Amino acid sequence: MSAGTATRRPLVLDLDTGIDDALALTVALGSPEVELVAVTCTYGNVTVDTAVRNTRALLALLGHPEVPVYRGADRPLGAGAPFLPSAPVRRIHGENGVGDVDLPEPAAADAPDAAAFLEGLGSDVLYVPTGPLTNLARALGANPSLVTSLQRVTFMGGALALPGNVTPCAEANVANDPEAADAVLRSGLPTRMIGLDVTHQVVLTREDTAAWRALGTPAARALADMTDHYIVTYEANNPLMGGCALHDPLAVMAAVDPSLVGCLPANLRVDLEGPTRGRTVCDPDRLRDARKTCEVALTVDAPRFLRAFRERVRCALLAE
Amino acid sequence: MSAGTATRRPLVLDLDTGIDDALALTVALGSPEVELVAVTCTYGNVTVDTAVRNTRALLALLGHPEVPVYRGADRPLGAGAPFLPSAPVRRIHGENGVGDVDLPEPAAADAPDAAAFLEGLGSDVLYVPTGPLTNLARALGANPSLVTSLQRVTFMGGALALPGNVTPCAEANVANDPEAADAVLRSGLPTRMIGLDVTHQVVLTREDTAAWRALGTPAARALADMTDHYIVTYEANNPLMGGCALHDPLAVMAAVDPSLVGCLPANLRVDLEGPTRGRTVCDPDRLRDARKTCEVALTVDAPRFLRAFRERVRCALLAE
Repeated sequence: MSAGTATRRPLVLDLDTGIDDALALTVALGSPEVELVAVTCTYGNVTVDTAVRNTRALLALLGHPEVPVYRGADRPLGAGAPFLPSAPVRRIHGENGVGDVDLPEPAAADAPDAAAFLEGLGSDVLYVPTGPLTNLARALGANPSLVTSLQRVTFMGGALALPGNVTPCAEANVANDPEAADAVLRSGLPTRMIGLDVTHQVVLTREDTAAWRALGTPAARALADMTDHYIVTYEANNPLMGGCALHDPLAVMAAVDPSLVGCLPANLRVDLEGPTRGRTVCDPDRLRDARKTCEVALTVDAPRFLRAFRERVRCALLAE
Repeated sequence: MSAGTATRRPLVLDLDTGIDDALALTVALGSPEVELVAVTCTYGNVTVDTAVRNTRALLALLGHPEVPVYRGADRPLGAGAPFLPSAPVRRIHGENGVGDVDLPEPAAADAPDAAAFLEGLGSDVLYVPTGPLTNLARALGANPSLVTSLQRVTFMGGALALPGNVTPCAEANVANDPEAADAVLRSGLPTRMIGLDVTHQVVLTREDTAAWRALGTPAARALADMTDHYIVTYEANNPLMGGCALHDPLAVMAAVDPSLVGCLPANLRVDLEGPTRGRTVCDPDRLRDARKTCEVALTVDAPRFLRAFRERVRCALLAE
């Protein structure tokens, strides 16, 4: 898809660019196995327009203004109005989505529509959505052949064995568009689910952000500041955790190196009705099917992931 | 605990003797690795008194009237009145708990109280509860040293990755006494959970019951008749399954041969409030603890289990 990918797999991230999306972007840029060839944006932690702006600002700050950014869905499937993040989400990610850290304003440019780009995704591309699955569901609807042509899609979302984080049953990305997640999980597309089951096992602490800040660069300071904002909200909401969960970065790293996680092969559905709406759960009607479309991550080698994450973020911050 | 156990591990079943409990009893009697040394009864599929009567009748029919039967809890922890099975449960297991099959009346005898027996369970005993965990919770309360002295307890109950069978979140045994299950799962006792995740993967069909009936003995006919009653209710409630789930027999066999199941080590809790009451779920507060007390079965070698189940039931039916 671009020059220089002979030995690096092309990677497309689909971000609702809040704080852990920023960390995912950073770790992707610091990973030698992949080349970030595009970012498609969506709503969730922020509006889609804020996601586009934050993504561009971060790419510029990290020395990669050349990576194209596409504007995707601004609302869940079937919704009548554009999505606006809730008050709790605005507290977690800040009003601007990046912990109220001021990033340099990116160069003005129109963001082309993500739909056509995603419908034409090549079979060599690693595609990693870390927000609601609206863009992917729409792409599969428009081009069903993606079900067989796409590589296994590693997404951040859901919770199989743990409670949800927005209701007792629902994780935020799936809760934001249960119909999209259900369509993706029932489509036959091979997926790998990086849900709360594993992301709550990988925790970043203030020691890490202090180490970034000590690097002294603008990008390192910005990343440290926004992550400290994120850690403060975790200290309030998850006081036993001792830091913040690395949701989106784990999805990127599990796409690059699936051996970081241990998975249950399963056929999932999403509950669409009642108090369990937004729950990811095994579909009883496909329980005994020989083919399982989803690899649900249930265990993670947290020390190995954290070592790799730290090395790669450091590389990205020093390469700016 | 009795003569002849030198090479056979003593097994104690805790049954709410409905139909799949009868199958569990049968497969236990047909398993050469274990000696059934006692049955403790509880409520659930039936009242505790019906469980005692059914267990005695089945033991006599299967040629083992010598196995002592104890009367356990008649109600959930904290309940004001004895438990009575619901109309749906009476349809599934029949009004008499054994598919309305007439079993020969067992010899009249007082059933001693299960509490003192369970509080003194030896460390060599395999203990397998297949109903609500009330008896075990009470025994742990009365004798906390059981937490360290008992072997890993394999129980049938719960659902981690699949929906429940009495509510979208709760499996019947746990739903019948969520407080007891929560107390057991938080006690530190090593457990192995054989929940719907695996029991819905092991299905018995009418071909199996026809093979039993062809054996021509009273026990074989009775087992075939009650299991056909069970299959009829599954055909109505789970038409895609093609038979009935072997819940309790799988728990017995997984205790005898844990290699039949693949497990996720986890620290579980039970939701006690709200619409998810009765749900077995990973406890976020113990997610990163190095020690996991529960082995949650998520995969099962169904063909190997079914072969072993068929052989052992046949042995038990021919040995009567």
